[in-house]
Amino acid sequence: MADKAGNGADRMKARLPRGFVDRHAGDIRAVDAMTAKIREVYELYGFEPVEQPMVEYTDALGKFLPDQDRPNEGVFSFQDDDEQWLSLRYDLTAPLARFVAENFEQLPKPYRSYRQGWVFRNEKPGPGRFRQFMQFDADIVGTPGVAADAEMAMMMADTLEAVGIKRGDYVIRVNNRKVLDGVLEAIGLGGDENAGRRLTVLRAIDKLDKFGPEGVRLLLGKGRLDESGDFTKGAGLDEEQITRIGRFVDFGQWQEFASDSTGRSTQSTLNEGGVDWVDEEASSRDLFAAMDASFGENEVASQGIAELKQISHLVSSAGYDDGRVKIDPSVVRGLEYYTGPVYEAELLFEVPNEKGEIVRFGSVAGGGRYDGLVSRFRGEPVPATGFSIGVSRLTAALKNLGKLENTEIVAPVVVLVMDKDTESLGRYQKMVSELRKAGIRAEMYLGGSGMKAQMKYADRRGAPCVVIQGGDERANNEVQIKDLVAGAKAAEGITDNTEWRESRPAQFSVKESELVEAVRRVIDAQAAERSGAA
Amino acid sequence: MADKAGNGADRMKARLPRGFVDRHAGDIRAVDAMTAKIREVYELYGFEPVEQPMVEYTDALGKFLPDQDRPNEGVFSFQDDDEQWLSLRYDLTAPLARFVAENFEQLPKPYRSYRQGWVFRNEKPGPGRFRQFMQFDADIVGTPGVAADAEMAMMMADTLEAVGIKRGDYVIRVNNRKVLDGVLEAIGLGGDENAGRRLTVLRAIDKLDKFGPEGVRLLLGKGRLDESGDFTKGAGLDEEQITRIGRFVDFGQWQEFASDSTGRSTQSTLNEGGVDWVDEEASSRDLFAAMDASFGENEVASQGIAELKQISHLVSSAGYDDGRVKIDPSVVRGLEYYTGPVYEAELLFEVPNEKGEIVRFGSVAGGGRYDGLVSRFRGEPVPATGFSIGVSRLTAALKNLGKLENTEIVAPVVVLVMDKDTESLGRYQKMVSELRKAGIRAEMYLGGSGMKAQMKYADRRGAPCVVIQGGDERANNEVQIKDLVAGAKAAEGITDNTEWRESRPAQFSVKESELVEAVRRVIDAQAAERSGAA
Repeated sequence: MADKAGNGADRMKARLPRGFVDRHAGDIRAVDAMTAKIREVYELYGFEPVEQPMVEYTDALGKFLPDQDRPNEGVFSFQDDDEQWLSLRYDLTAPLARFVAENFEQLPKPYRSYRQGWVFRNEKPGPGRFRQFMQFDADIVGTPGVAADAEMAMMMADTLEAVGIKRGDYVIRVNNRKVLDGVLEAIGLGGDENAGRRLTVLRAIDKLDKFGPEGVRLLLGKGRLDESGDFTKGAGLDEEQITRIGRFVDFGQWQEFASDSTGRSTQSTLNEGGVDWVDEEASSRDLFAAMDASFGENEVASQGIAELKQISHLVSSAGYDDGRVKIDPSVVRGLEYYTGPVYEAELLFEVPNEKGEIVRFGSVAGGGRYDGLVSRFRGEPVPATGFSIGVSRLTAALKNLGKLENTEIVAPVVVLVMDKDTESLGRYQKMVSELRKAGIRAEMYLGGSGMKAQMKYADRRGAPCVVIQGGDERANNEVQIKDLVAGAKAAEGITDNTEWRESRPAQFSVKESELVEAVRRVIDAQAAERSGAA
Repeated sequence: MADKAGNGADRMKARLPRGFVDRHAGDIRAVDAMTAKIREVYELYGFEPVEQPMVEYTDALGKFLPDQDRPNEGVFSFQDDDEQWLSLRYDLTAPLARFVAENFEQLPKPYRSYRQGWVFRNEKPGPGRFRQFMQFDADIVGTPGVAADAEMAMMMADTLEAVGIKRGDYVIRVNNRKVLDGVLEAIGLGGDENAGRRLTVLRAIDKLDKFGPEGVRLLLGKGRLDESGDFTKGAGLDEEQITRIGRFVDFGQWQEFASDSTGRSTQSTLNEGGVDWVDEEASSRDLFAAMDASFGENEVASQGIAELKQISHLVSSAGYDDGRVKIDPSVVRGLEYYTGPVYEAELLFEVPNEKGEIVRFGSVAGGGRYDGLVSRFRGEPVPATGFSIGVSRLTAALKNLGKLENTEIVAPVVVLVMDKDTESLGRYQKMVSELRKAGIRAEMYLGGSGMKAQMKYADRRGAPCVVIQGGDERANNEVQIKDLVAGAKAAEGITDNTEWRESRPAQFSVKESELVEAVRRVIDAQAAERSGAA
């Protein structure tokens, strides 16, 4: 700590590390209010909180580079004094898998849990890409039944509505990785030796929103050159393979049209695929028929389609088939560890992107079944499903909709310091204590400056009023109260409402014993004014 | 991610890293309830939330080893891709100092802020010593006046009472580092060249609670041999130096006796110091007189005593001199960066320690003035003061007092799965949806097991009741509701209260359309029973 004192010559630059941010009062309060609502929904669904630490053994996260003795670059890692590698968690799922495996016997099964927390990515930061960000996850571990996946999809819908997103402004899309796995197997991409290519195909399909069908086609084939001249190498599939995957992706495109309608509506806009939608229910039936016809001969795909049918039935039993939850074969999710149903929450309203183009807001949450993550610790199957909400992403969406709860926090009353002797400071301190005892946020001005600076400080804090007691007031056992909102209005020249000014003068005197009551009147009058009362 | 699948042969061991812990539902909920109350007090005092990330540049934390190009071992550190060293924060104060320095122009000054968060120590873990733990801090930056320190001490007192600690069960002790600095200067330990020895002296005095006056004396001299045979090297002071510091520490011991009384009481137990306490106010006067007489000739000490007098006056003006806030010269705080007033919150009630001895619970929060931390970034004085609550420590104290809020969370109602066909699952799902819509926590059993396992699951979750619908019930449009609390009582043989059993049968049938209402009746009856109603 010898460098702690520092002097002008070698003084340190105060700077945030790249990709990290400070959080200010407004953001903290808004996120707290939003996550409280999310928590309420999860609790209603029978989930319980459980949290893991930020640090795990690197191998438990599955983040060692293949065939190398050092961790993946995507995670922040450091060696412990016993030489073991530790990493900051990059998501909340891998630590949960470790927790469940370690405490398996003690947990009720199926085990429903939720957790909110920071995760870390050792990646190149960019606009909107942070190296520390918050996720809010819910998981059910210990059940192979897709009823759990159906429930997850419905809980996603309830959660979005709870935080303020209107029905029709979002859709929860559900697919099953097994259908795509079947397609990939059918075109010769099965087996461990093709794991890398399968991942490339997954990520290509996942880019449908971003690059459109033609872009995906390029990524499935030789590769894609973007506008900036960067070339992304493709999966190297041949024309026939691409066509068959294209057919799979097209099902999602069809659904896309159907999902433009909100609610349970009649829809018959699309004929190009040979399917004439009548209503949502019929469209599901037709979709499944078409999927069966296209991929049903493959056993894995067929099982996937059967699971989707069951999810579809459960969703409609609970009444969520009114446009809230939809089967959509184009949803794949970029992570390779999913083994069954996958689901994502997409916001449908439009916003300008960084280029000024109008686009859908897009995904704010996603998840799926990951039957392998817990099993790798236990050597027995431990099926699991869960999803993750990107908290900043959802906050941004609510901000966009003007739905960001900003609880009305009244700023503190500032008691000005007119005399700086200990005796006077004691009196001001007493006023502050009395205001606080009455539940009113208050503070004595603690800086060393004069009247002007003190008023500027009170303005900057957004104080409802200041309390002033100089020698004269003191002699009369009085205090002056200056209403800063009324004062600002007066200054703006809103002087025509004589009656209002008379009933709420910007500055007035009261007996010191009436301080609390008078301040409360000012705060109440300002609150009434804000809420539009006379 | 090639190692993700894993098989029995090379399967991974699920284990927490040393010194890290998982948090369970009860702890998470209790801490959330407690921190909400802390936040309320801070807000009342005019503080605003602001948060820094978990990662900072190592140099900004002041944690490089002197004269070495690698970070202190006490922090978890890693190099960024641009070779700069990053560290996990070890407290919340250093990141705040960086934040204030970086955003100085934009902040109102004085700047009152609070933050709650995890901090990390790369230290040997032990019982009750974790490598990740939570702190809750409040700070005022930008004022040199000790009115800010007085306010901090009073806010500590209000905070402890807000979370449930009775007046008299705690004391906030206040001292001023300047007094000790003056003493050290007077005995020849001034100047940069004695910084190391001063720190050793500080840490020795800080051990008064643990080792008693004789132990401190040894640590000030040649050193101390503990029971296990470990020798701690002392500060190497001579007899006269030790005697003078001893005199300083003794002031604290005197106060100790006075603080055994709760509230503003008459006290005249102690004559050995030649001071006969009359009441708290007189005791403060006598203490200051004695301090002036002993150390007043040193300029720094004299300034420190004057500041303590001012704090004492402000505290008594606000009415906190009734045993809540006390001046106590034995408080030093172990951190070297404090430059003026220091304060700590001590809990006075007694608990058994790990050896079974009865001891005071001790410190749960502490802080002080750190005028150098922000300045080292700015090359201009930026005075600051603040304190930190050890959240786990305070949680443990409340647990000990039986004051740990465990909000009554009703466990979810479990709808059993009697038939597993998709059609039936859909019906069960619908029941669950209806219960949730009515605000009742509910879930469908998602495991694959039979009736017995399902009942065991419901018991384990603590479900208030289960809902059962087999083929017979379905044919009659009915459901069975089994009250698990009433059921448990019946099983325990509490069968004499015939009337009670008749009014609340353990299992009964209702029309399916009356499900929600019937479940609510069961939950309400159980709540009434818990709260002691008939």
